[in-house]
Amino acid sequence: MLRALQIMPVPGLPEIRPGDDLAGSIIEACSDSTGLADGDVLVVSQKVVSKAEGRLVEIDPEDPQAHKPLVVSESVRILRRRGDLIISETRHGFVCASAGVDRSNVEPNIAALLPEDADRSARRLRDAIRGRLGVDVAVIVADTFGRPWRRGLTDVAIGCAGIKPILDLRGTDDAIGRELQVTEVCIVDELAGAAELVRGKSTGIAVAMIRGVDPAWLGEGSVAEAIVRDPSEDLFR
Amino acid sequence: MLRALQIMPVPGLPEIRPGDDLAGSIIEACSDSTGLADGDVLVVSQKVVSKAEGRLVEIDPEDPQAHKPLVVSESVRILRRRGDLIISETRHGFVCASAGVDRSNVEPNIAALLPEDADRSARRLRDAIRGRLGVDVAVIVADTFGRPWRRGLTDVAIGCAGIKPILDLRGTDDAIGRELQVTEVCIVDELAGAAELVRGKSTGIAVAMIRGVDPAWLGEGSVAEAIVRDPSEDLFR
Repeated sequence: MLRALQIMPVPGLPEIRPGDDLAGSIIEACSDSTGLADGDVLVVSQKVVSKAEGRLVEIDPEDPQAHKPLVVSESVRILRRRGDLIISETRHGFVCASAGVDRSNVEPNIAALLPEDADRSARRLRDAIRGRLGVDVAVIVADTFGRPWRRGLTDVAIGCAGIKPILDLRGTDDAIGRELQVTEVCIVDELAGAAELVRGKSTGIAVAMIRGVDPAWLGEGSVAEAIVRDPSEDLFR
Repeated sequence: MLRALQIMPVPGLPEIRPGDDLAGSIIEACSDSTGLADGDVLVVSQKVVSKAEGRLVEIDPEDPQAHKPLVVSESVRILRRRGDLIISETRHGFVCASAGVDRSNVEPNIAALLPEDADRSARRLRDAIRGRLGVDVAVIVADTFGRPWRRGLTDVAIGCAGIKPILDLRGTDDAIGRELQVTEVCIVDELAGAAELVRGKSTGIAVAMIRGVDPAWLGEGSVAEAIVRDPSEDLFR
């Protein structure tokens, strides 16, 4: 079955502060723009989730290195250093720069940490939206990570709810009837990247909505369980 | 400016054989479905480009290892091996499994190699479409690669034309006026991944069309020059 996807920015989210009702703000912003329907996928930036969950630490705004101790404490293992760049494995198992600690789109005296459990964050948003609107959406929490062999960064999923992170095609045939070699497609990372294209970095648009995904993709799943690769099966750590 | 993106599958491409007029087939398939307009982005699978360019090698269909010598000859450096898995750096500088040599969606006695220069492949398709239709589209040639720290595969750009591979936001402020920390977004990889979501692996749909991209993204650019990271600046090779 052929499906087109629509990727829509959701503007109008207010500045989010610790303890704010993020689900309520997202519902309101969506009702002003795209609306929400069963099967829609909401992609929410890590930054607003971290803000709502109070994952903020006060730092010296004058010191460009002030967030570095947080990078170390958020890491279980430093993998590489070059100049100011630290690539580490976070407590969640993500491999990224600065352990996801970020000073952009927050006040100068604040550093934002990654959510403690972004799958749980996604689940809570999904449950709150279902509870209040009776609408069954999938939620992806996205952050921007680098890649070792390729320049530039892309958005990937750090948490999800209501969608299978990986489409498992093992046992499926290709178009000419041979068994597929590429079998596990990380659809939540592709959806997170697609959402970034309409959110942008400098616009402050923290949410995008994707309409038209294959209903077969919806279901239970966790980024931590499905995507995070155990160091023991990793060839490059 | 807020933009929504539409990601549309382009069905109807015939089986492509060496020497076939791929641009003509794409034009025909698009005219039957989405049409083509200035600023559209066509994402074309590596497989049909390799077929049209005759990047096919005959192998013993009975031997599951028959493509292995090709993996070695397409590589400049083997980075890791585990069991049947070979991760290497290709002649193009891509780091991927099996040097991009692939036996799915080709006849059992055939292995497909990556295009010699996928930026050139993209440029030729773009030029042919402009020449015949007078329409200015961007073209991305996409393939499916794994990632070291994350399970599952995603589509990335191995060649492009008419679009800047990386959106360089250096010097741009975030939504609250601080300089952005994430500055280089690899939009062609995000577009390639978005296109994969509507193409799928088992449907044989080799082309997707993306409508609505920011005109500021259009322009000259090459994956080889902008994205392929030189081993000397790579921390994990």
